[in-house]
Amino acid sequence: MDTSVPVWGVDVGGTTTKALRLDAAGAVLDERRAPTTGPDPDGTLVTATVARLLDGRDPREPVGVVVPGIVDDEAGVARWSANLGFRDAPLLRHLTDRLRGPVAFGHDVRAGALAEAADGAAAGVEGPVVFLPVGTGIAAATLVDGRPVVSEGWAGEVGQLVLPGGRCAGHRVEEVGSAAALARRAGEPDALSVARRVEAGDPDARALWDDAVEALAVATAALVVSVAPTVVVLGGGLSRSGRLLLDPLGDALAALVPGLRVPRLVTASHGDLAAARGAAVLARRADARTSPDGGDGALR
Amino acid sequence: MDTSVPVWGVDVGGTTTKALRLDAAGAVLDERRAPTTGPDPDGTLVTATVARLLDGRDPREPVGVVVPGIVDDEAGVARWSANLGFRDAPLLRHLTDRLRGPVAFGHDVRAGALAEAADGAAAGVEGPVVFLPVGTGIAAATLVDGRPVVSEGWAGEVGQLVLPGGRCAGHRVEEVGSAAALARRAGEPDALSVARRVEAGDPDARALWDDAVEALAVATAALVVSVAPTVVVLGGGLSRSGRLLLDPLGDALAALVPGLRVPRLVTASHGDLAAARGAAVLARRADARTSPDGGDGALR
Repeated sequence: MDTSVPVWGVDVGGTTTKALRLDAAGAVLDERRAPTTGPDPDGTLVTATVARLLDGRDPREPVGVVVPGIVDDEAGVARWSANLGFRDAPLLRHLTDRLRGPVAFGHDVRAGALAEAADGAAAGVEGPVVFLPVGTGIAAATLVDGRPVVSEGWAGEVGQLVLPGGRCAGHRVEEVGSAAALARRAGEPDALSVARRVEAGDPDARALWDDAVEALAVATAALVVSVAPTVVVLGGGLSRSGRLLLDPLGDALAALVPGLRVPRLVTASHGDLAAARGAAVLARRADARTSPDGGDGALR
Repeated sequence: MDTSVPVWGVDVGGTTTKALRLDAAGAVLDERRAPTTGPDPDGTLVTATVARLLDGRDPREPVGVVVPGIVDDEAGVARWSANLGFRDAPLLRHLTDRLRGPVAFGHDVRAGALAEAADGAAAGVEGPVVFLPVGTGIAAATLVDGRPVVSEGWAGEVGQLVLPGGRCAGHRVEEVGSAAALARRAGEPDALSVARRVEAGDPDARALWDDAVEALAVATAALVVSVAPTVVVLGGGLSRSGRLLLDPLGDALAALVPGLRVPRLVTASHGDLAAARGAAVLARRADARTSPDGGDGALR
């Protein structure tokens, strides 16, 4: 493998598809965006969008593509997606047929976790790492020994957990704790606008904020008692509110897991480029795996 | 490694220490029991009990010893135990000093998971496996790719999760859902007596049973959204009630994780010998690792 070759990381989001071209040190050489078109049950529209976005790419430069939803990495299939409408879409096959050169395929949140662990907020961390992006929806990825827990794509769906108590009992974590839910409930265009109202002392905004924090604490507590991460990296729109989120979340979490080791809560380093950067990590690994000179052991 | 040599599996419980001598096929050649003495902060009492229990053992026969609490398998240290009072007890070192021949050390619940996966209720299962013994306390072990998630011993402490809602809001899962808690709340000697009252139509017993089921559902849902096990093996005292537990637990779990893949719920095959049998699995692996002829790859 020639590690000096640039790689491409492509993040297929619900509304926008982003492509990054990165050099071996992770510096951005090129950044491109295009609207995502859907619904796309079998993945052909997404494949066409990715191919157009990479127009003119040198086929020696490996590509990683990541998508949201229930993704079976090993099979290379996007089983299901609310936003994009995937239904067992064989995306790795489509992408390999359409693009020349090495192609990798995976899941956006797990890729984001790899990026944050590689050179982001969880770089050099010992023990399990959780990446928890809080944006339109909520899902988590857990790395154990640096490898994501996948379970055919079903692991980490903490946003779907029903809250068994509190003001929002009966609702799913995602319906209360996501950036989108918070904005919608407050009648604001985005979660940062809600954060500004909280900082200004608005009691209605504070109540909704507390609901979101409580929902996120329930989701994080589920991860703590299951895999005991040493660090939880919060990403997505809500993480940009920083300590306004982290401080009450740490308190609410500690109250839910008395006597246990509470993980360090940090905000993501790579912002909304974490998934694309993680897709590039997958591209390098896939290239290492398929190259005649073996590989660099990055799959450990 | 001579796989025809018998191995010993020792389970140090809160009240009783059990030792099994197993042949290569897993058949029990000898079974011994002794009272556990404690509190034992540094592990010397437990070491003495194990040594006495194994009196006359052929030192070529490997030994695995497992204990409850927060156990750092890699360091060989029992960090903490409510029942036995361990405080950073260096048990692997004590046991290696005291016993001749190959010695392994680990955690009772994770060992039970290995035993159930090796030749018990989760034999041959694809994907993550959870072992959830419900006895005096509640803790879980998760196997991913056949290997336990450890996190320095902090993983799987689902019994410590605080219930955020319902009739028992504010209590920990273990205080409501354990076999011991159920018996205590019902004023019965054990959980099976409560089960009999439930089967006889006693409404008070039914309410307490429903509380326990709801608490166990919250614990299991935490594991489902985190690691998405394909199978959850229920063990310990409460699992002996069979369908009286499994049917309502499956319903309560499904209600907490709508749209997600619900794991198969099964009862343990090895009963209260799961941990001792798992200790024997650890003994075989340790022996494989240290033998001059390499190993059998069992650590994958």
